[in-house]
Amino acid sequence: MHRLLVKSATHSYPVYIGTHIRLHINRFLPKHYSSIMVITDDHVAPLYLEDIKKALRHYRVNEVVVPAGERSKNIHTFYNLHTQALDYGLDRESLIIALGGGVIGDLAGFMAATYMRGIDYIQMPTTILAHDSGIGGKTAINHERGKNLIGSFYPPVAVIYDTYVLHSLDDREKRSGYAELIKEALLRDEDFFNALLNTNVHDLTDKQLVNDLYKGMQIKSAIVAKDERDNNVRQFLNLGHTFAHALEAEVGYGEMTHGEAVALGLLFALHVSTAEFSQPLPYSSLLDWMQRNSYPLDLSMIQAQCMLERMRFDKKASREHIRMVLLANIADPVMFDLEIQKMKRYLVSFLNELSNRT
Amino acid sequence: MHRLLVKSATHSYPVYIGTHIRLHINRFLPKHYSSIMVITDDHVAPLYLEDIKKALRHYRVNEVVVPAGERSKNIHTFYNLHTQALDYGLDRESLIIALGGGVIGDLAGFMAATYMRGIDYIQMPTTILAHDSGIGGKTAINHERGKNLIGSFYPPVAVIYDTYVLHSLDDREKRSGYAELIKEALLRDEDFFNALLNTNVHDLTDKQLVNDLYKGMQIKSAIVAKDERDNNVRQFLNLGHTFAHALEAEVGYGEMTHGEAVALGLLFALHVSTAEFSQPLPYSSLLDWMQRNSYPLDLSMIQAQCMLERMRFDKKASREHIRMVLLANIADPVMFDLEIQKMKRYLVSFLNELSNRT
Repeated sequence: MHRLLVKSATHSYPVYIGTHIRLHINRFLPKHYSSIMVITDDHVAPLYLEDIKKALRHYRVNEVVVPAGERSKNIHTFYNLHTQALDYGLDRESLIIALGGGVIGDLAGFMAATYMRGIDYIQMPTTILAHDSGIGGKTAINHERGKNLIGSFYPPVAVIYDTYVLHSLDDREKRSGYAELIKEALLRDEDFFNALLNTNVHDLTDKQLVNDLYKGMQIKSAIVAKDERDNNVRQFLNLGHTFAHALEAEVGYGEMTHGEAVALGLLFALHVSTAEFSQPLPYSSLLDWMQRNSYPLDLSMIQAQCMLERMRFDKKASREHIRMVLLANIADPVMFDLEIQKMKRYLVSFLNELSNRT
Repeated sequence: MHRLLVKSATHSYPVYIGTHIRLHINRFLPKHYSSIMVITDDHVAPLYLEDIKKALRHYRVNEVVVPAGERSKNIHTFYNLHTQALDYGLDRESLIIALGGGVIGDLAGFMAATYMRGIDYIQMPTTILAHDSGIGGKTAINHERGKNLIGSFYPPVAVIYDTYVLHSLDDREKRSGYAELIKEALLRDEDFFNALLNTNVHDLTDKQLVNDLYKGMQIKSAIVAKDERDNNVRQFLNLGHTFAHALEAEVGYGEMTHGEAVALGLLFALHVSTAEFSQPLPYSSLLDWMQRNSYPLDLSMIQAQCMLERMRFDKKASREHIRMVLLANIADPVMFDLEIQKMKRYLVSFLNELSNRT
């Protein structure tokens, strides 16, 4: 089992990574709790909920199962979680466990952040992608105008990551998760990036998966420790995301996985970076890798103007500029304010380039 | 003008108390903002909104006016505030101004706490009562099951308290505000308490009002500085509130002012404290003062059992006990866990005593 410690403004919390540790989750609770509510989705519940409840049989445990998918990250589900927690009698000494992927982590985290002004919660990621969202304390729900617009910074008390559960993922979710690993490698570690380009995400060994995740989480937690509230270096983690958030909203949440959108966003960041810095960057090798690993590359239905409008509603946008992360080189990210019209030209050229290629 | 500095975990923020300082609010902003959204209610807007907008004429300012009263502190209004902020193009460098009483402060504060994971906000209290809620960073909305159940700790960047606006308050609101001052005095300052008992809240001089508020805010901010997240001494500020929250829910939010309910809650706390500590406490003199100042004292429509059920849903309750603040003596508060059945007996005897008296 690997163990990492993540520093936050209010407390440090451990990340445990290991096989089958869900069966002993009781050992990883930081203190006694008056009761526990497990929040999960209807894909994950049939697979792992009983394991968790068995491990926690000495506690009063209730569960809430929401429909799987991005659509559950809305204000109604959020309010209903509060209602159910009240019905179950959760108090300030209770614990929330977020058992699922990024959607569950964000939703249950925000619910815990706001239940009676904040109670403890634990992240139990069940996807590769959630290795990223599971640490760092960002919680949120979506607004109909855009993703993650309502939320808060509220770190968990622990992250318990059972890599066994990743075997139940389908290829699409593996692709989605590896996009964030590619991002972390691009931000900090060229060797890791090159190793990932040799990876076939549909044919992963256990050992490789655990090591890749551990490396990715180390990068993420080092960045978060430096800037929890996202005023500075943490914004680099947004690499690829300005484009990705707009794309997800444009195709409809849930139609494309977050990671698939991020992979396209990384490609777009390399496209813009190459032009801005006249520097050789691995645009083509990333595109090749994405093709080999069956990432969606067909954006023929996407309009540059619509993407632009979405980007202007992004949390990071100001009125005249759209802020995005570029790479002066691999492992050398920079924040960049692009004028609206310039951004539009890059969107047009990127979409053209992709459609010529595919 | 008085100035106080309140310490929070993330930053310290100033409280300015003075006459007509709303006309120069621009001087009290801690930095430049890309835009400002004023959140207020339809009672306050006609009186002071134009003053604020005039003082901020060099900024891009939008306003949202919600219906006055506790009923606006709900999830729908909360979501609509987000929608309007997005429509106005508020970004992370924008400011929210909460112009109003406790309802507006709590609602706008929680909106600011969660808009794009938190932007700056300023409290501009327009009631006496809000001298209390305006500092300390507690923000919340109500859930249909109870008051303030969804919220967070999120301190403002400044509190700007123009005492001139308190002249527009009616007697009921003055009573409401003085209840929290009585509470603060009971917690920390016997002389202040005795002075307040000589006050006629319907006949206040300017000077007296400013001094009383300044004293109350000093007590409040000293307590909050010691325990922002309400794990310890801050819970003493809950004196009278376990009863008050239950009472407000029982009679219907908005039917009784918060402070009127708190005054009755203080009386209940003195009733229980006298019995638990066999100590002479100013139950009768507080009751006399409340009668002289026309506080509602008729609780003949209230059932002890219903109050008990409400109290069990309070944030501070566990399953077997109800936690409430008692006074071992004036200026000597203690946290106390009362068994459910014992609490019921006290409720019955208190309601009987009140109905015999009135």
